[in-house]
Amino acid sequence: MSKLLAIGTVAFDKIETPFGQTDKILGGAGTYIGLSASTLGIKTAIVSVVGEDFPKKYFDIFHNNNINTEGIEVVKGGKTFYWSGRYHNDMNSRDTLITDLNVLEHFNPIIPDSFKDADIVMLGNLHPLTQLSTLKQLEHKPKLVVLDTMNYWMDTALDDLHKVLKHIDVITINDEEARQLSGEYSIVKAAKKIYEMGVKYVIIKKGEHGALLFNDNNIFFAPALPLEDVFDPTGAGDTFAGGFCGFLASTGNISFENMKNAIIYGSCLASFCVEKFGTQRMENLNKEEISKRLKAFRDLTQYDFTI
Amino acid sequence: MSKLLAIGTVAFDKIETPFGQTDKILGGAGTYIGLSASTLGIKTAIVSVVGEDFPKKYFDIFHNNNINTEGIEVVKGGKTFYWSGRYHNDMNSRDTLITDLNVLEHFNPIIPDSFKDADIVMLGNLHPLTQLSTLKQLEHKPKLVVLDTMNYWMDTALDDLHKVLKHIDVITINDEEARQLSGEYSIVKAAKKIYEMGVKYVIIKKGEHGALLFNDNNIFFAPALPLEDVFDPTGAGDTFAGGFCGFLASTGNISFENMKNAIIYGSCLASFCVEKFGTQRMENLNKEEISKRLKAFRDLTQYDFTI
Repeated sequence: MSKLLAIGTVAFDKIETPFGQTDKILGGAGTYIGLSASTLGIKTAIVSVVGEDFPKKYFDIFHNNNINTEGIEVVKGGKTFYWSGRYHNDMNSRDTLITDLNVLEHFNPIIPDSFKDADIVMLGNLHPLTQLSTLKQLEHKPKLVVLDTMNYWMDTALDDLHKVLKHIDVITINDEEARQLSGEYSIVKAAKKIYEMGVKYVIIKKGEHGALLFNDNNIFFAPALPLEDVFDPTGAGDTFAGGFCGFLASTGNISFENMKNAIIYGSCLASFCVEKFGTQRMENLNKEEISKRLKAFRDLTQYDFTI
Repeated sequence: MSKLLAIGTVAFDKIETPFGQTDKILGGAGTYIGLSASTLGIKTAIVSVVGEDFPKKYFDIFHNNNINTEGIEVVKGGKTFYWSGRYHNDMNSRDTLITDLNVLEHFNPIIPDSFKDADIVMLGNLHPLTQLSTLKQLEHKPKLVVLDTMNYWMDTALDDLHKVLKHIDVITINDEEARQLSGEYSIVKAAKKIYEMGVKYVIIKKGEHGALLFNDNNIFFAPALPLEDVFDPTGAGDTFAGGFCGFLASTGNISFENMKNAIIYGSCLASFCVEKFGTQRMENLNKEEISKRLKAFRDLTQYDFTI
């Protein structure tokens, strides 16, 4: 069975949207990637760090979804990373209210022995050197390494980011970040510049406007599912990435053609993620509802016309 | 052979983009709709009005593309509608510099007898009562009536717009206009509100983010083709609408399934339109380049995955 290793934050989130607000709930990139990938019945491990305040019930959520948590370090006396944010009415932009790094500040990822031979590695948004140190612990080069990052690291650690880009296969960033990283306004030109940084596949996430996959001169586009209400966008990008990696791991096929399917699968899971606050919708997804949603994606984009 | 009747402006445009600027060139919604629909070898007529200053060489462009111009009134001593605009660097927004209505101010559309039995009617963006007066001249209800409008008419002639909406089948508007017309932020909810106004099919144009087609609970999405450079977006929406109508007319099939194909065809033609200033790219499009571009659309969105 294929192994997916996800490194990323496991956190407390407190979220405000026009629809309401939460207490401190389970969040973090590692969490969403893990929950999403685990829908495919592959071996999934999260590597992260939490404090002693991290409750057993959240570990139970991981274990109920067959996620290996050996790589989640619990720091004695430490406090879990805490993020709080408020979404604007358009749900596309948000203000960060609180960022308490806590135990994340000295996070030193340790890959469990049983996942040092992972087939696919997903490097969630973290300091580029932390991402790099994960790769160095692996027994051999994985089939595919996928990296997520953000404008913050382009502003504060660009050289380190360029170092890690030389060791990965796929980058996922949003359109503004692609423009910042490449210095090109056109997304097509931006992707080409990013190839030159050593990355073979560029995935550009456009939120409600979908996602684009670039490789050489090939482009594939997957829309987001138009929804009546987006309840809470938190974690949608990580859920997308987790579904993408999980699909590739479960099929064992990393061709561009299969990446198209993987992008659709990731978009499908992201469409669930935004329907409820936090991880709520992702904790108990069943195969039937995923199948039904995949059919909705098919109806949304597939057509018969040939000239 | 199917007949498409397009009513809309035929104009002089003067355009500035970050890539350069034009003199007064051929423009107008009717022009772009006509040129686009005429790629399909159907009978296409434009109903419009121009002044005596409208040059023969522009009529020649229409005739070379087999477009019937009997319905383009030439007002003696009158001046042709003139619009000038400047695009911002993002190419998604623009400032209008000049709008000289000229002969358009007293435009009273007269449908040529030979097109009073048109199969498909495209009502380009004009005063809603002008659109309505066109419909009243037809011999019988066409197979399909498609209407384009804009926020200006929602601000200044909303009651008249509601009157004409009761007589049409398909509306094409952009996302902001859909929100304004419906009072709903969610595009899905906006479409449902617009159904209640008497419109069965709602097409929401999102520019570089593609277009959505809504009918009952069905949704179809077509992306815009990602391009290295968008040279001039003028006329892209009308080109899209002209391709959509032309495709439906040429196939004689107005089912939702075939509208998917029509939306792809319209998106394909719009991707050409933006590659050069004004109508330049649309004047001499050949079948091979259209076929090749349709294949690029297929590669962009079609995938094999079935669960």
